[in-house]
Amino acid sequence: MEVRDCLVSAPGKAILHGEHAVVHGKVALAVSLNLRTYLQLKARSDGKVCINLPNIDTFVCWELSELKQLTSFLSDKKEEMQRLDAELVKRLREFIGVTNGNLDSSASAILAFLYIYLSLFGSGDMPSLTVSVWSELPTGAGLGSSAAYSVCLAAAFLCATGNIPTPLKEWEQTGRWCQEDLELINSWAFQGEKIIHGNPSGVDNAVGTWGGMLRFLAGKIIPLSRVPLLRILLTNTKVPRSTKVLVARVKDKINKLPSIMIPVLDSVDAISCTCEKVLTEMTCEPITGDHYNILEELIDINQHHLNVIGVGHPSLDTLCQVTAARGLHSKLTGAGGGGCGITLLRPETDSTTVQGTMKDLRDCGYDCWETSIGGPGDSV
Amino acid sequence: MEVRDCLVSAPGKAILHGEHAVVHGKVALAVSLNLRTYLQLKARSDGKVCINLPNIDTFVCWELSELKQLTSFLSDKKEEMQRLDAELVKRLREFIGVTNGNLDSSASAILAFLYIYLSLFGSGDMPSLTVSVWSELPTGAGLGSSAAYSVCLAAAFLCATGNIPTPLKEWEQTGRWCQEDLELINSWAFQGEKIIHGNPSGVDNAVGTWGGMLRFLAGKIIPLSRVPLLRILLTNTKVPRSTKVLVARVKDKINKLPSIMIPVLDSVDAISCTCEKVLTEMTCEPITGDHYNILEELIDINQHHLNVIGVGHPSLDTLCQVTAARGLHSKLTGAGGGGCGITLLRPETDSTTVQGTMKDLRDCGYDCWETSIGGPGDSV
Repeated sequence: MEVRDCLVSAPGKAILHGEHAVVHGKVALAVSLNLRTYLQLKARSDGKVCINLPNIDTFVCWELSELKQLTSFLSDKKEEMQRLDAELVKRLREFIGVTNGNLDSSASAILAFLYIYLSLFGSGDMPSLTVSVWSELPTGAGLGSSAAYSVCLAAAFLCATGNIPTPLKEWEQTGRWCQEDLELINSWAFQGEKIIHGNPSGVDNAVGTWGGMLRFLAGKIIPLSRVPLLRILLTNTKVPRSTKVLVARVKDKINKLPSIMIPVLDSVDAISCTCEKVLTEMTCEPITGDHYNILEELIDINQHHLNVIGVGHPSLDTLCQVTAARGLHSKLTGAGGGGCGITLLRPETDSTTVQGTMKDLRDCGYDCWETSIGGPGDSV
Repeated sequence: MEVRDCLVSAPGKAILHGEHAVVHGKVALAVSLNLRTYLQLKARSDGKVCINLPNIDTFVCWELSELKQLTSFLSDKKEEMQRLDAELVKRLREFIGVTNGNLDSSASAILAFLYIYLSLFGSGDMPSLTVSVWSELPTGAGLGSSAAYSVCLAAAFLCATGNIPTPLKEWEQTGRWCQEDLELINSWAFQGEKIIHGNPSGVDNAVGTWGGMLRFLAGKIIPLSRVPLLRILLTNTKVPRSTKVLVARVKDKINKLPSIMIPVLDSVDAISCTCEKVLTEMTCEPITGDHYNILEELIDINQHHLNVIGVGHPSLDTLCQVTAARGLHSKLTGAGGGGCGITLLRPETDSTTVQGTMKDLRDCGYDCWETSIGGPGDSV
């Protein structure tokens, strides 16, 4: 079988509002982050299957014959994708030699690749190909880099198998899929996420697939049809943190001071709902400075609330102060306790301000990107 | 009539928690601030009545004969002190030559002095005396300096008339009054506050009279029997602000974003209640580091909430940062938007830390005092 070459991309993810509160039954808003992961699939004719992941210094090739031996472990019910095929995962771990303990990012990326490759091609004619993936996203920063990778893998392989069409007309530069195809991509990407993360929420792959904004409440993910594209700075303080420890810290605080903390979660919930309402308004009426004023106010309030629930960090305080000195508003995004923050840029924020702010933040030792949120999902 | 010399003092006031929220029906905790106002009453034999207020550069003497002419305006029902005698106030304004507009601090202090003097002595033998008042409290900083002044005036004159006893036994250094006497002092001090402020809440004079801590809810003031003495730093950022403007700003924010702001007020209410509970525990069980940890946490959370409701200020952020750098926790007290802040000192906070912090704050251009809250009220 020979596959058609293709280039697909998927965005990263940022939490706009509701991180942590979502664990306690409140609404969270996840948005696509226009730092993208790109995957190029190229057919080969030498009977090899290769993967190049320059971001994590991973370059591996297998003989098709080796991979064919693994197909005997494929479950017959591979159309039923609700659950991960545990037996296949086990065999693949043996195959790549990581039977015990946690996977590093290289091993988990290889495992996800092999799982989706074998699941989609294993029952038929297995193609010789090279997959090369590179990403603008930092890894392990809570920005959905693994989900963007899984979404790209799923989309490229589903195109190659013909399960979904290549939506690109000859005269188009980029294209997207219909709803049904996106759902198929998302399901396979979720399998990849499960391999990499164990118990993912499904938000990251959904954002990577659909783009725009998603409302996430009590495990239910609702893509929101239209949102405006917002310019932001994304800053990585590079302060390492454990999401698990931070989630536990919030829980402890709520248990210790429930009468004080529960209203704060209610207020965060109202912030997410108000933000969703404002963003919806911005798509159906002329965008004014008032819209941006409210978005900025919501960012400031939520940043205070996140400090109250115990997930702030001096590095994030510095981010807020540095950007406030330029009239810009920032909040942490994701787990907090370090990690990443977002800074809203207004349409009228000029490049001198943006460049100056980015320089200030880099002088603090942070990584900083000018990008946007709310852009398209998985594209070819 | 000759009066006995006496020296009385009354403390200032700080809001520990619940400023602004109290306007919206939530609990506030007001505490005595051990920066005191002192009043010395000395008998004279030259038929003059004099007042010396060095803090506001006010030194005035009248002939008793002048003041006696004013007694014809005294209402017969002067025992009924629920309302201010508007006719007397009007005549006194004429007497001191300020018939129009707002009073400056000098004129309002003189007016309060004359009002209480005439009301208490006017129907009998009027004494020749000098009242000298000096204060550790900055004026106009929301720390209850006018109330402390009114409390001192009321206490000294009530002693002099014999309406309340001089509680000092010969061998005692300081003394206090019984509950009934304190209530009488407080009522007269409230008259003084009305003259100075127009429409005071009554909290400041109550704290000046009773000391300790008061719970203030929906206009009702409940003195709390026992509270521990807490060491604090009091900082005056000297940034001028208008309480009226700040109260209006909070109201606007609540009207604009009710679903976000109302839970924040609920959380502030819970902070006040939790703080009251912790302080009560500290008086009836051994004080531990945990008690202080919670008090510090409540201060941090409330400071975030006060920022959320819109009464923060960069000068207060600086106060919090400077003290946080020494491991200390601060919040604004009172109206915010500048003004004063309090910083909790732990029992183990050493003088090097305290002195260093005070130096840092003074280097920011702030005034700073090491003092305590929760101390005694009006004393002789």
